[in-house]
Amino acid sequence: MNFYRAIHFCSACGNTTTQRVPVGDTRERACCDSCGTVHYVNPRPVVGTIPVWDGQVLLCRRAIEPRHGYWTLPAGFMEVGETTAEGAARETREEACARIELGSLFSLIDVPAAEQIHIFYRAQLLDTGFSPGEESLDVRLFLEDEIPWNEIAFRSVDTTLRLFFEDRARGSFGTHTRALQPRTPG
Amino acid sequence: MNFYRAIHFCSACGNTTTQRVPVGDTRERACCDSCGTVHYVNPRPVVGTIPVWDGQVLLCRRAIEPRHGYWTLPAGFMEVGETTAEGAARETREEACARIELGSLFSLIDVPAAEQIHIFYRAQLLDTGFSPGEESLDVRLFLEDEIPWNEIAFRSVDTTLRLFFEDRARGSFGTHTRALQPRTPG
Repeated sequence: MNFYRAIHFCSACGNTTTQRVPVGDTRERACCDSCGTVHYVNPRPVVGTIPVWDGQVLLCRRAIEPRHGYWTLPAGFMEVGETTAEGAARETREEACARIELGSLFSLIDVPAAEQIHIFYRAQLLDTGFSPGEESLDVRLFLEDEIPWNEIAFRSVDTTLRLFFEDRARGSFGTHTRALQPRTPG
Repeated sequence: MNFYRAIHFCSACGNTTTQRVPVGDTRERACCDSCGTVHYVNPRPVVGTIPVWDGQVLLCRRAIEPRHGYWTLPAGFMEVGETTAEGAARETREEACARIELGSLFSLIDVPAAEQIHIFYRAQLLDTGFSPGEESLDVRLFLEDEIPWNEIAFRSVDTTLRLFFEDRARGSFGTHTRALQPRTPG
């Protein structure tokens, strides 16, 4: 899935690269053997929302891999030129055709094994005129006791939903940080 | 500065790329003319800390471009395989040789014009045995009224410091989100 992040050739000049530690650096990077360009790789931000309507939370059933058929909060890779809030709203529009008023930052979940940061904002649906976008099979509202916990696509979504319901029960929403460690095999 | 992000050649196979909208996508991406690999570009996370000792804040005077000679909070590009908190602590160690206990998430600043997100954690210095790292000319503690406001390297650092002193005056630290829009020329 991250194949394109393997840098065998220089994106600037097309010549081969070698993994080595550039002068003044401490880590191996893909360095161009011809023009010398250093190709850094950084974690990627994933942005999404927790859209709420009348005490229910909107989830999307994924029409794409990974985790086809599983339920998720609307979220996806942040694009250059947008803010985290703009990206979160865009993903909500694209995946659920939903109109929202964006709320405050709710969770920042580190997923180092996937080289990602997952960032979720709270959101208020403006109406119930949502529908599945191209990457969703279905979009539905769920009461807390209806959440399909065994069919949630990603641990960051499971974590964010649990934190959300905990905060709601307490009557006060905070901002939460968590780091997801790799699953131990078996 | 972001030259290497211009993708003229495929990093997987070395052939040329063309900017076009891949099937099922809505944006132009660099697509390989030979192997078809789509090269996505995403904003990059910058992570750092607000290290505090006895009411003072630690700042680093930059020994590198951009903003050589200006003061900044210790911060830098997040590396793959680490969490935001680990990256923030690493940057503090590298730039200020400082030992800290990391606190809570303090600010998430969108910088869309730079294709970056800046993330700062609060931190408590464990001792005053800090010193300039390779990318710093000087490292110093500043009381609030000593902060060199006209010599701060980046707007996200200026914003974070002002939010920090506001919260401190109020006696309660929150988590803050801001978006920095491009400076208007002139």
